[in-house]
Amino acid sequence: MTTLKVPTDESVIKPDSAKYPLLSAINSPEDLRNLPLDKLGGVCNDIRGFLIENLSTNPGHFASSMGAVELTVALHYVFNTPYDRIVWDVGHQAYGHKLLTGRAGRFHTNRKLGGLSGFPNPDESEYDTFTAGHASNSISAALGMAAAGALKHESPARHVVAVIGDASIGGGLAFEGLNNAANANSNLLIILNDNDMSIDRNVGSLNSYLAHLTASKGYNSVRYRFGRLARKMGLVTDSGKGRIQRFNNSLKSLITKEQNIFEGLNIRYFGPFDGHDLPRIIKVLNDIKDIPGPRLLHLRTVKGKGYAPAENDPAPWHAPGCFDPESGERKGEADDKHNPKFQQVFGNTITALAEKNDRIVGITAAMSSGTSLNIMQKVMPERVFDVGISEGHAVTFAGGLAKEGMLPFVAIYSAFIQRAYDNIIHDVAVQELPVTFCIDRAGLVGEDGVTHHGVLDLAYMRAIPGMTVAAPRDADTLRSLLYTAQLPERKGAWAIRYPRGRGYCSNPDAPFTPIVIGKGEQLREGADVNVLSLGALASEVEKALDMAAQKGVECAHYDMIFLKPLDEDILEKVAKTGKPIVTVEDGTVEGGLGGAVLEWLAKKGYQLPVTRIGVPDAFVPHGKVPQLFKLCGMDADAIAKAVVAAAGKEVAEL
Amino acid sequence: MTTLKVPTDESVIKPDSAKYPLLSAINSPEDLRNLPLDKLGGVCNDIRGFLIENLSTNPGHFASSMGAVELTVALHYVFNTPYDRIVWDVGHQAYGHKLLTGRAGRFHTNRKLGGLSGFPNPDESEYDTFTAGHASNSISAALGMAAAGALKHESPARHVVAVIGDASIGGGLAFEGLNNAANANSNLLIILNDNDMSIDRNVGSLNSYLAHLTASKGYNSVRYRFGRLARKMGLVTDSGKGRIQRFNNSLKSLITKEQNIFEGLNIRYFGPFDGHDLPRIIKVLNDIKDIPGPRLLHLRTVKGKGYAPAENDPAPWHAPGCFDPESGERKGEADDKHNPKFQQVFGNTITALAEKNDRIVGITAAMSSGTSLNIMQKVMPERVFDVGISEGHAVTFAGGLAKEGMLPFVAIYSAFIQRAYDNIIHDVAVQELPVTFCIDRAGLVGEDGVTHHGVLDLAYMRAIPGMTVAAPRDADTLRSLLYTAQLPERKGAWAIRYPRGRGYCSNPDAPFTPIVIGKGEQLREGADVNVLSLGALASEVEKALDMAAQKGVECAHYDMIFLKPLDEDILEKVAKTGKPIVTVEDGTVEGGLGGAVLEWLAKKGYQLPVTRIGVPDAFVPHGKVPQLFKLCGMDADAIAKAVVAAAGKEVAEL
Repeated sequence: MTTLKVPTDESVIKPDSAKYPLLSAINSPEDLRNLPLDKLGGVCNDIRGFLIENLSTNPGHFASSMGAVELTVALHYVFNTPYDRIVWDVGHQAYGHKLLTGRAGRFHTNRKLGGLSGFPNPDESEYDTFTAGHASNSISAALGMAAAGALKHESPARHVVAVIGDASIGGGLAFEGLNNAANANSNLLIILNDNDMSIDRNVGSLNSYLAHLTASKGYNSVRYRFGRLARKMGLVTDSGKGRIQRFNNSLKSLITKEQNIFEGLNIRYFGPFDGHDLPRIIKVLNDIKDIPGPRLLHLRTVKGKGYAPAENDPAPWHAPGCFDPESGERKGEADDKHNPKFQQVFGNTITALAEKNDRIVGITAAMSSGTSLNIMQKVMPERVFDVGISEGHAVTFAGGLAKEGMLPFVAIYSAFIQRAYDNIIHDVAVQELPVTFCIDRAGLVGEDGVTHHGVLDLAYMRAIPGMTVAAPRDADTLRSLLYTAQLPERKGAWAIRYPRGRGYCSNPDAPFTPIVIGKGEQLREGADVNVLSLGALASEVEKALDMAAQKGVECAHYDMIFLKPLDEDILEKVAKTGKPIVTVEDGTVEGGLGGAVLEWLAKKGYQLPVTRIGVPDAFVPHGKVPQLFKLCGMDADAIAKAVVAAAGKEVAEL
Repeated sequence: MTTLKVPTDESVIKPDSAKYPLLSAINSPEDLRNLPLDKLGGVCNDIRGFLIENLSTNPGHFASSMGAVELTVALHYVFNTPYDRIVWDVGHQAYGHKLLTGRAGRFHTNRKLGGLSGFPNPDESEYDTFTAGHASNSISAALGMAAAGALKHESPARHVVAVIGDASIGGGLAFEGLNNAANANSNLLIILNDNDMSIDRNVGSLNSYLAHLTASKGYNSVRYRFGRLARKMGLVTDSGKGRIQRFNNSLKSLITKEQNIFEGLNIRYFGPFDGHDLPRIIKVLNDIKDIPGPRLLHLRTVKGKGYAPAENDPAPWHAPGCFDPESGERKGEADDKHNPKFQQVFGNTITALAEKNDRIVGITAAMSSGTSLNIMQKVMPERVFDVGISEGHAVTFAGGLAKEGMLPFVAIYSAFIQRAYDNIIHDVAVQELPVTFCIDRAGLVGEDGVTHHGVLDLAYMRAIPGMTVAAPRDADTLRSLLYTAQLPERKGAWAIRYPRGRGYCSNPDAPFTPIVIGKGEQLREGADVNVLSLGALASEVEKALDMAAQKGVECAHYDMIFLKPLDEDILEKVAKTGKPIVTVEDGTVEGGLGGAVLEWLAKKGYQLPVTRIGVPDAFVPHGKVPQLFKLCGMDADAIAKAVVAAAGKEVAEL
């Protein structure tokens, strides 16, 4: 089994039929399609009310789903789902889709262990046609489905619809899909859900292009005269609809002094339309759904639509946490200066360092608030580059900056930097450029689940020659690592990875102290077992070793800090004791710290028992981080058991 | 040191001044810039003659560089290199650039061990501004350089020029760069070198768009009347050049019924111009080089320009091997049916399998001839998808096809599939979709060098849960693996990786036989050492074990075939002998087969000496494959020494 299984939470709380009379009666899209058109507005209201009620107490992604309610209703009303395929992108916006496809009663389990996934998940429902956790993949996936349909000569022709946001469409993968869509001669319909927002404010030329893509004031009055002239000159001899449509787009472009990019790529463009005008969307979808060839329907939507606090300030309402549905007050977490979030430590530290070192620049791929790079952005906007959802570009761009003497710090989530793997190798590491990858959300991230865990980075970063790979155990170490990464002695590419979560900080304003590159630190002495840990799991290890000590097993504990280069002094010292070794890391056990230690021991001719603790070789579902640690055998209990077993002592049960 | 160092081949053979009077006198671009304009045509002739003479006997990339001669001369003539930065993309076309930047005398060492790199390489010359081996990175890298220049307030303003081909610009990374170029407010100049060719024939909407991007016949005659109308209607009130230029582009678009995509992205578009009209290119470059903001100059060039055989049939002349400069006859390698190229075995096998299994489809990213997928393409074009330089899309598209019941075989070179790493994880592996990655050019590829070696795939593929990873030792095994990969019992994602090179084939027409998934094979018995190998290095191992046997060291040899899942029966058997283990693989030793074996042994509680042979943890330069094997300690000699040492027997020197 490739995914760790947990018991499904089958509990059902049906939507209250008094509060949500229409939604509560919809058990599948078939029920929706049986409703008359004039009831659909009521369905939208029910969905919004239900989302507000549920998400205020069981937090999740809010504003995107609120903005996509009409679109969702229209899609399931017009298309014959699940036979027709709707492919969501990212899936932040797919809660309405979950409610309409038989999952309203389980929505209270959203993002909980054993509950519904926060993203479309084909394992969960046949209506979820494809994995949707990383941006920009919907067009490519849908195009593959459409191509399969054509090869299989399916009858009736299966409609395939890719939904993509205006931020996601700026990703290179989406462009590759668009570029291939016309060529593959598919009947793909692409819906551009344009709310002019990424998680943070959107960036990129394509985005400003989309913002201006509208009928200008003069358009209608001018159209007639141009049209007549064009016809007279034989430019529009074909009476076919497509040609006229394209001519009108050209005319619109001419007048608005903008160009239609999609038409240039041979994709028929329709829009922009108001994405909250349900009757109109339904009419347009019916009009265009059977036109052959690739088409793009551009809908303008409002993120957070229908809930004033979110409409007014959508960024924090992307995933607001718990909130008071009446007042819109968000229940933030209390600040704790001795136990801050790693993100915040990164943001504060990079800002402080950049104030003294003018070679430092910050780069983010549409995650300036998520990574806290917005702290630096506020202070020195010209030295922070938010390149949009373009992880590959972010890294190569950093390579160019570094080649000209800058010190780029690229802050990207672990699961997303996977898409820049080649850029890291080819555009940074081969040239030994001093780019620092600040890999956020590393390890198990919790409720976002399988697509968002960052558990492969240690293994795939370690394979890259010359890459320095480090993981701080706490906020103090993160501060020191970042400080050291901008000192002249740092060489080549660095990866510093830290989890979603908090770590100990002795003093947030303490002067910076360097760390010796490639050197770890001994945290505890003990003669029975040597425990080598990497990263923030060190605190779990300390708990475990206290438990083991109570059973009479005394362990030494070394925080390696660096996975690469390994601290050979520690390894030598540990190996010479001849005692069993236990390695602990919050990444996959296939080729991570444990593997690196084994390889070093083998190279040096040591033969010792080594127990590796880490994320097992399986995909990990969603749930709270402590629950997942337990599931993966990485919590203090499991670590304690492992060290006691490694010690080989007979002890009473733990 | 991150790159393995070899002694530089410093030998110089200056261009013959009788044959190449102008080129032989150019020692740096400064010399070129001192020539009068009317001598530059002669420089181009010299470059072409010199390239034909040299590449006919010392093979390399031919047609791309021939097509870029005028562009290269113009760039170094107009721009103040190396102060101004020219960033090449891929770098196939950069031989002329090498000749003009002081490297003509060393060009006879091109692609040889210790000689010039076949691609731009910053370690080699300050004129080579960035690594250029993988397509589509030039815009992003150049944008980073331009941003650094702006931050440093360089004076005089440094020009940064990105050169990109029409195939490369279709890659997602290039689009991400374009999308960010206008926003970053850079003064980047992008030169689109459009020869309407990738290595194979180009594909994609952007490409057909570029092909039609031209002044239509009616353009000039119509322009006046439209222009007058537009002015009359107040659409063109601004007399500024930019607005007029944009208006003209819009007008051109209207008339040609096409749109200017670059203008839509807020990048000023100039062109298309004839890329072989040197005086005109120089004039245009001088006109536009100081215009602020991002600009794109579109040049039409002819691949192979100036050499008729290549102009007439550019695809095989991309990298033609040795040839007769007079007749244009290429000196192909003889076919050997018992020792065929792995590529050819893949192409023939997939075609034969697809004829019987209609779920099989083939996907390539612009490498249909390189991967030999063109064999299937000829027989069943509708079932082969060449998606262009879009490795990420290729994989996600395959995921969509697989989700709808097809069995996609995605053939991509190892070094290039790195850019689809996230797609492999998120769009295939998480869903356990039956996509087979046929990873070509795995291991050390030889003369293409550091950017093209495929040595990380074993490590990064092994980290992915549920991924089956296999490597055939010969053509027979590759046939069986491909056959097995399309049987109903295959589950989830597969990676089958094989090198550039040849392998034994007992009978190319033999009936297919399945292979047991996760099972290796014993090739030799011996009591002193157990050798576990993976992939085509098995033949090198066999040679080595013959040598060791002569020294009295008898080894057992197991071909693991599968890196994942590991054959635990073999491991159990081997471990129980208590004898030393030597692992041999043509991938990095950091987390590959050796690491996997160590991890298994540790898990099972075995403590045995293990010697790992593979690519060391460093970047590997270019040279012939046997030279590189020797350099890396992976040739038969080195393996023999290692097994003898592992055996611990006192023997005379090998």
